[in-house]
Amino acid sequence: MEIRELLQAYKKGLLSEEEAARALTYSDLGFAKVDRQRSLRCGLPEVIYCEGKTDEQILRIFEDLRAGSCKTALGTRLAPERARWLEGRLSGLHYFEKARIALLGEPMEEVPERYVVVATGGTSDIPVAEEAAVTAAAFGARVERCYDVGVAGLHRLLSKAELIAGASAVVAVAGMEGALASVVAGLAPCPVLAVPTSVGYGASFGGLSALLTMLNSCASGVSVVNIDNGFGAGYQAALINRIGVKNSEDTLY
Amino acid sequence: MEIRELLQAYKKGLLSEEEAARALTYSDLGFAKVDRQRSLRCGLPEVIYCEGKTDEQILRIFEDLRAGSCKTALGTRLAPERARWLEGRLSGLHYFEKARIALLGEPMEEVPERYVVVATGGTSDIPVAEEAAVTAAAFGARVERCYDVGVAGLHRLLSKAELIAGASAVVAVAGMEGALASVVAGLAPCPVLAVPTSVGYGASFGGLSALLTMLNSCASGVSVVNIDNGFGAGYQAALINRIGVKNSEDTLY
Amino acid sequence: MEIRELLQAYKKGLLSEEEAARALTYSDLGFAKVDRQRSLRCGLPEVIYCEGKTDEQILRIFEDLRAGSCKTALGTRLAPERARWLEGRLSGLHYFEKARIALLGEPMEEVPERYVVVATGGTSDIPVAEEAAVTAAAFGARVERCYDVGVAGLHRLLSKAELIAGASAVVAVAGMEGALASVVAGLAPCPVLAVPTSVGYGASFGGLSALLTMLNSCASGVSVVNIDNGFGAGYQAALINRIGVKNSEDTLY
Amino acid sequence: MEIRELLQAYKKGLLSEEEAARALTYSDLGFAKVDRQRSLRCGLPEVIYCEGKTDEQILRIFEDLRAGSCKTALGTRLAPERARWLEGRLSGLHYFEKARIALLGEPMEEVPERYVVVATGGTSDIPVAEEAAVTAAAFGARVERCYDVGVAGLHRLLSKAELIAGASAVVAVAGMEGALASVVAGLAPCPVLAVPTSVGYGASFGGLSALLTMLNSCASGVSVVNIDNGFGAGYQAALINRIGVKNSEDTLY
Amino acid sequence: MEIRELLQAYKKGLLSEEEAARALTYSDLGFAKVDRQRSLRCGLPEVIYCEGKTDEQILRIFEDLRAGSCKTALGTRLAPERARWLEGRLSGLHYFEKARIALLGEPMEEVPERYVVVATGGTSDIPVAEEAAVTAAAFGARVERCYDVGVAGLHRLLSKAELIAGASAVVAVAGMEGALASVVAGLAPCPVLAVPTSVGYGASFGGLSALLTMLNSCASGVSVVNIDNGFGAGYQAALINRIGVKNSEDTLY
Amino acid sequence: MEIRELLQAYKKGLLSEEEAARALTYSDLGFAKVDRQRSLRCGLPEVIYCEGKTDEQILRIFEDLRAGSCKTALGTRLAPERARWLEGRLSGLHYFEKARIALLGEPMEEVPERYVVVATGGTSDIPVAEEAAVTAAAFGARVERCYDVGVAGLHRLLSKAELIAGASAVVAVAGMEGALASVVAGLAPCPVLAVPTSVGYGASFGGLSALLTMLNSCASGVSVVNIDNGFGAGYQAALINRIGVKNSEDTLY
Amino acid sequence: MEIRELLQAYKKGLLSEEEAARALTYSDLGFAKVDRQRSLRCGLPEVIYCEGKTDEQILRIFEDLRAGSCKTALGTRLAPERARWLEGRLSGLHYFEKARIALLGEPMEEVPERYVVVATGGTSDIPVAEEAAVTAAAFGARVERCYDVGVAGLHRLLSKAELIAGASAVVAVAGMEGALASVVAGLAPCPVLAVPTSVGYGASFGGLSALLTMLNSCASGVSVVNIDNGFGAGYQAALINRIGVKNSEDTLY
Amino acid sequence: MEIRELLQAYKKGLLSEEEAARALTYSDLGFAKVDRQRSLRCGLPEVIYCEGKTDEQILRIFEDLRAGSCKTALGTRLAPERARWLEGRLSGLHYFEKARIALLGEPMEEVPERYVVVATGGTSDIPVAEEAAVTAAAFGARVERCYDVGVAGLHRLLSKAELIAGASAVVAVAGMEGALASVVAGLAPCPVLAVPTSVGYGASFGGLSALLTMLNSCASGVSVVNIDNGFGAGYQAALINRIGVKNSEDTLY
Repeated sequence: MEIRELLQAYKKGLLSEEEAARALTYSDLGFAKVDRQRSLRCGLPEVIYCEGKTDEQILRIFEDLRAGSCKTALGTRLAPERARWLEGRLSGLHYFEKARIALLGEPMEEVPERYVVVATGGTSDIPVAEEAAVTAAAFGARVERCYDVGVAGLHRLLSKAELIAGASAVVAVAGMEGALASVVAGLAPCPVLAVPTSVGYGASFGGLSALLTMLNSCASGVSVVNIDNGFGAGYQAALINRIGVKNSEDTLY
Repeated sequence: MEIRELLQAYKKGLLSEEEAARALTYSDLGFAKVDRQRSLRCGLPEVIYCEGKTDEQILRIFEDLRAGSCKTALGTRLAPERARWLEGRLSGLHYFEKARIALLGEPMEEVPERYVVVATGGTSDIPVAEEAAVTAAAFGARVERCYDVGVAGLHRLLSKAELIAGASAVVAVAGMEGALASVVAGLAPCPVLAVPTSVGYGASFGGLSALLTMLNSCASGVSVVNIDNGFGAGYQAALINRIGVKNSEDTLY
Repeated sequence: MEIRELLQAYKKGLLSEEEAARALTYSDLGFAKVDRQRSLRCGLPEVIYCEGKTDEQILRIFEDLRAGSCKTALGTRLAPERARWLEGRLSGLHYFEKARIALLGEPMEEVPERYVVVATGGTSDIPVAEEAAVTAAAFGARVERCYDVGVAGLHRLLSKAELIAGASAVVAVAGMEGALASVVAGLAPCPVLAVPTSVGYGASFGGLSALLTMLNSCASGVSVVNIDNGFGAGYQAALINRIGVKNSEDTLY
Repeated sequence: MEIRELLQAYKKGLLSEEEAARALTYSDLGFAKVDRQRSLRCGLPEVIYCEGKTDEQILRIFEDLRAGSCKTALGTRLAPERARWLEGRLSGLHYFEKARIALLGEPMEEVPERYVVVATGGTSDIPVAEEAAVTAAAFGARVERCYDVGVAGLHRLLSKAELIAGASAVVAVAGMEGALASVVAGLAPCPVLAVPTSVGYGASFGGLSALLTMLNSCASGVSVVNIDNGFGAGYQAALINRIGVKNSEDTLY
Repeated sequence: MEIRELLQAYKKGLLSEEEAARALTYSDLGFAKVDRQRSLRCGLPEVIYCEGKTDEQILRIFEDLRAGSCKTALGTRLAPERARWLEGRLSGLHYFEKARIALLGEPMEEVPERYVVVATGGTSDIPVAEEAAVTAAAFGARVERCYDVGVAGLHRLLSKAELIAGASAVVAVAGMEGALASVVAGLAPCPVLAVPTSVGYGASFGGLSALLTMLNSCASGVSVVNIDNGFGAGYQAALINRIGVKNSEDTLY
Repeated sequence: MEIRELLQAYKKGLLSEEEAARALTYSDLGFAKVDRQRSLRCGLPEVIYCEGKTDEQILRIFEDLRAGSCKTALGTRLAPERARWLEGRLSGLHYFEKARIALLGEPMEEVPERYVVVATGGTSDIPVAEEAAVTAAAFGARVERCYDVGVAGLHRLLSKAELIAGASAVVAVAGMEGALASVVAGLAPCPVLAVPTSVGYGASFGGLSALLTMLNSCASGVSVVNIDNGFGAGYQAALINRIGVKNSEDTLY
Repeated sequence: MEIRELLQAYKKGLLSEEEAARALTYSDLGFAKVDRQRSLRCGLPEVIYCEGKTDEQILRIFEDLRAGSCKTALGTRLAPERARWLEGRLSGLHYFEKARIALLGEPMEEVPERYVVVATGGTSDIPVAEEAAVTAAAFGARVERCYDVGVAGLHRLLSKAELIAGASAVVAVAGMEGALASVVAGLAPCPVLAVPTSVGYGASFGGLSALLTMLNSCASGVSVVNIDNGFGAGYQAALINRIGVKNSEDTLY
Repeated sequence: MEIRELLQAYKKGLLSEEEAARALTYSDLGFAKVDRQRSLRCGLPEVIYCEGKTDEQILRIFEDLRAGSCKTALGTRLAPERARWLEGRLSGLHYFEKARIALLGEPMEEVPERYVVVATGGTSDIPVAEEAAVTAAAFGARVERCYDVGVAGLHRLLSKAELIAGASAVVAVAGMEGALASVVAGLAPCPVLAVPTSVGYGASFGGLSALLTMLNSCASGVSVVNIDNGFGAGYQAALINRIGVKNSEDTLY
């Protein structure tokens, strides 16, 4: 439901004044101003970046989002022990350990007939890839995983060429030299979202090497997110996967 | 037409063996191996990056693409004087001076009912924005331009909020501190493709500052291309704009 | 009281020779030379940067400042457990935990009818913002806090536009892409002091990204301090807030 | 005049509807959206950064500002030959060659009894210092210049200590190691605005060295602008110099 | 001939004292000390890096090498106009324009039954590749060129897999993201010498991106030389190609 | 055995279909795709980079390699306690503690009459050097160690000149300023593989200083691997040491 | 005693053959090659950099130096607990805790009538300064300490101007912006050895800021050592302090 | 003559009041404040850094220095054509073209029995070396040049070992990997002043590589100046060369 639709619904009496107001404003918790309008404005609901916030703060933001009728609330970069603390206080919280993501509520309804591929160069890139995969799935994308297909052994990637060719977006996750994104983009008729990871040592400079590789890709159709930002790529992939899909009223609020 | 379709068409006799072969291989010009298979594999045809190639080389690649039945061939980063030299030798070449792009053939058929927004922070970012806009248009996207809406005077951007809200993708082009992408992503329910530009001086370090800003965007839904890479963002925007659109046979080859 | 006034006061017998001498020199503690002349010279008293000093050294400098009649002595970057150790040894020490600042003595008299705004992009930037706020308040500025108003949800910041418009200075604290400073400077008719924070990951490079953003701000009226240097911005804001205010004799020494 | 005052003036009939509207909006020139509201919102009028704009574009923006009743319009980073071209087309344009600034209209009325000091480390820093000085003067600050007082011969700076002690702000311009800002801040009871310059060679890395020096100043009360950004420091100094000064109606619009 | 052999030859009277001395020392030209001992010590003769030397200096070093009986003297990074000047003064000088290399004397005898592959990612990398190819050939390697086989169109590289599989070393030359080296190393049972080039723009940072990519290669068997250092890779390839080959006395001196 | 030989062997019935298939494909373990084809394609078998993998994952990959008849499987960057855990579960595993390498199976047969030198600048570089030495030895090279021969005391290195002159490759391992590689290359008639180490402090920037030194070597014949990448240099040295050596069938699979 | 003198002493029978040989060679401990010739060659004896060496290795090198008749052996960067372990095993070892240096044997005889000043910008720089001071003293320099004289309070430094004016060298130790070196060099008629320290945070980048400041010093007569390298500066100061002083035979060996 | 001596000379009537005042102050030329006190304070006279100054400014500073009785005035970084312009206006000006230095007046009296060595790694480093050599000579040092003795051919450097062993300081000038300084410091019993040059390409990053090498030197006794700063090293060498030498009254003023 977009802002305009919401206003019409309110005019027609389908929404109470309180319900409308709640969706159009932010809640001020002092330490945070929770953006309830976001899913109307941006198509997907607010997400809590948990690093640098206290357990208590995260709990209160989750509660506030639920109070604001948010049906799919995500918390990312959440350590397992913190997740366990929250699970004791919030019913309906599901924690994805490899991805370090907590989901409060339900994933959005899956977009039919489309899917997103999440690929990695190596085994060590999997945690970042899972962050992307769980995010995309929470926001309605079917996800196909394709791990450890780095360019040092091309036959592994080529054996997945057909899967890649059918995707609406590919998330390519790689550390070290990060060449995966270019090679994938040479095979994919869809946008490739490249995620450099901090996997590596020495002159990988914490992921800088992979980041530069991906930014300089000689293959068209690659765009890049921050180092280790699986969430960002999964979110973008979900947005792309929804292009042209009419938001059914029940997927959001 | 994808590779599979091409093979079926050949089997059914709709394509001659020569036509099929031409589309499935590359032509080896010695100094270049022109990738004729690309539009089958990647959805959009080969593009010539003209910098670092001689006039003669560019001419021969254009000729080879035309011989390979490519209907929409682009050459980017082409200086005006070089374009003029080519125009005298290639009929049907159209040059977009602000964008520094040459188009041989016709733009792809426009995707109906969708559009892409190209926005800039300032006036000096316009050449990069035009590269994005012309590229996206060549590959079938209707483009809405929205220039000089930088964050130092927010009311200029906010007056375009509705236009942004309806796009299938927004290309946000900005130099200096590059904050435009984050602010736009806070308003847009679609993917934002951020293009840092080298506009600025001192600690902008040739666009590095804007690049880092965009990679670290606190707003979800932003992905980034190389500094001044208007082409890359326009190409990605065109891909996104085509999601779910059945390639009609006549748009490619 | 400036140096000249002090000399006149001494001539008139309002100050004893010992009092005058104490204010014009430094005390040599061996490991430190405490600058007693500073508040005469620079308008605000000496501040102790506690990192890299031992507990014992900090204690002795505080004692020396008090002996030198300093009425408002600050110690910054002081960990809670160290503060507790000092509190047991120095009467009249007040510790601000979020800001990690200890204040010995009294805040300076508040400048009437003016105030300083301290704003943050996110929740994780609050500790740095508190360092700025407590510093500014200690040096006589009324402080209005305005936290979590980052640019990804502009309506949060715009709802504070009036507050910002009335300030004598705004301290804008932000990590990640640090776009807050530019957007605030586009709204504020006063100097904006930008504080990049080390909040972020990957290509934020420990705050470098936000630092560059702020240095390259396209909005006029922004100046920048070191990463996480809330103290510096609060100090500068207090200086600006005092412009044109006659130092009453009792605010200093 | 602030926005609120403008609205009241309009209500009282002191301003026509057209006059009010002109001041509250921006003019859309296509390649630029001129921010007419700026001086209401930010206290000082719009400034044209001329680099990267064509002569024709600069001319049209100056004309638009004049049409919008802007009384003090500045164009910075304007080369002499371009200035000459403009002077032939815009009456009332004054060009400051060392500062590379063009002023259309009149400087703002000088703030009485206050002044700003602009100091440089060396002779080669003078062009950047002049950009600061001319900007500050255009926006109503009396400016005292104090050039070539670098730290390698301290007696030169110390002979100016009294001048520095009386300023409302000091702009400290220095390249190479940029130590001037710290030393000045140790002498000044007011904000110091540090401008690193690109003067130097080798490991000065185009001003990076001086920039880092200034950001890490051990002296309190220093904030920093971009490399060679004399304009930014002069603008900030003018803002500080105006603190607590009631805008007389005739200084703006 | 190694130093030991030379000494024995001298003892046996096969070399005069003067001949022996000439080969064991350096000639001091004042501005240069030409290392005549080098080919005895390092297996391959001295090479002149022409950048930063005057025409006159290059001429005198070439003359000195010839006087020292060097049979294969190379000058690299030599601009065409300078080469022409030298050709008029040195008989037997051959200039390779694409490679910008001048060869005085004869190439070393070709190592039988082995070859070196020189591959590039794109057309713009060819000048650097030619520097490698001409160097390797001068030092006795048969060279197979394989240009424009970048990873964005893998079928181009895969069609050369057999050629690569038979080489004694592969020189992989690529700019932009530099992924070629990793992909080649996944196909080659021999050392891969990676040469990053400065081809690219923006975040390629003059070849830094490709350099980091290659240093971080996830494929084993890659080592890297300086940006644009085709000579270094060609030299190393020639050394590898000679492993286990008995230096016939007539190939050196 | 190369791929071609394998196919012939299969045709002749020397290999069963299952054996052939096993060698030509990869095994998909989900988290990893083990590249069994590698030693056919690249001359040396797959190596496990253990950092970032769980103990369980390493165990399963080792088991899979053994199942695939790999005779020489290496695991690098393996901490002692993890090695001990593996030793209890894998018979025939040998652990080299200084090198942090585990070897499953047997080293490859030693190449006769050739050797590789591994040299270090200092004592602290030895762990990286051991990684190189153990790797090279596992892949069939005789290794001569030459430690603590840094350039500050040249007579130490010069006393090893003869050893260096006879090697087929030299691995030069050095941190701090990394000058060892250049000096060695001036003495060696064979390829020098330079390994920068992270030994040092301050402006060594984690090995960056040594890396740059080695990339800029004024001596011909130096190529460089990643910081602390002893494995990479040892692998490359082993490849070079094998040039021209016919793979006996029993060394691989 | 220089090498020539040593040879003469041996010829005259003042030294036994064994004694002469011991002084001219290095001892090979396997993990280290101890440079016994160093004090003959370089004027000052070998120094052990303890970081990255095991306790056992340090012990054996100290023992070897003593066996080689070295009268003044230093070990730097030695943690207190390691020093205690060594003290139990080596008689005559003296540990300087603040400097983290162990001295085996006696300091060299003090050069008469000269001294070296060691100055710091702040209290936190003292450990690095002590490394310099203890080193210089061990090698025969009288040392005057002058701590916490940073440029933010110039009167502290100016009160030491006379001391500085009389030194044969000044070691200037400073972190943060590192301006001390320039200011001191403007006062000192002798070489200034600048030591940047890693004291600071944010954009000090681990001492990089201070390093660049010092390298770009506008004052003549400054040279720089690595970040935190107090040893290097103390060593260089001792060398300078000895210029023109005849080595008495008993100071070395 | 030091300040104290000057005051005594004035008291005794050996200097007029005017002469004393002239030597103790600076002359204010507006664009420059010429430091006449410098040679009293710092032992060596003021030097003009000509880059970034106009011809007219340089002329006036030279004239002012002469008026101030400076006997040895240097102007560095002076292009040949500018030198010619000055020679026409200043009698007694001598220009050293390779060094790009102009000397007004006479070199200082040579320090007897000592000398300074200036060495370079290659031929292209000579201009920087000449800047060092001419500077040192102007300030009273005998200079021995030793060019093109880079570490790739050690025998060239070793043949100069005796010369190096006798120097009071060595200036080691090198670009590319800059290893010369470490090797020289391993041979020299005196301070080594290392000058990195911008000679090189690619990953030399304009001299950064050589700079880092030199800062990280594993050899004791190396200190470093800015990239290409031959002047700084020559100046420092001259200072060291004068240690312990009584300034005769006629060498200064």
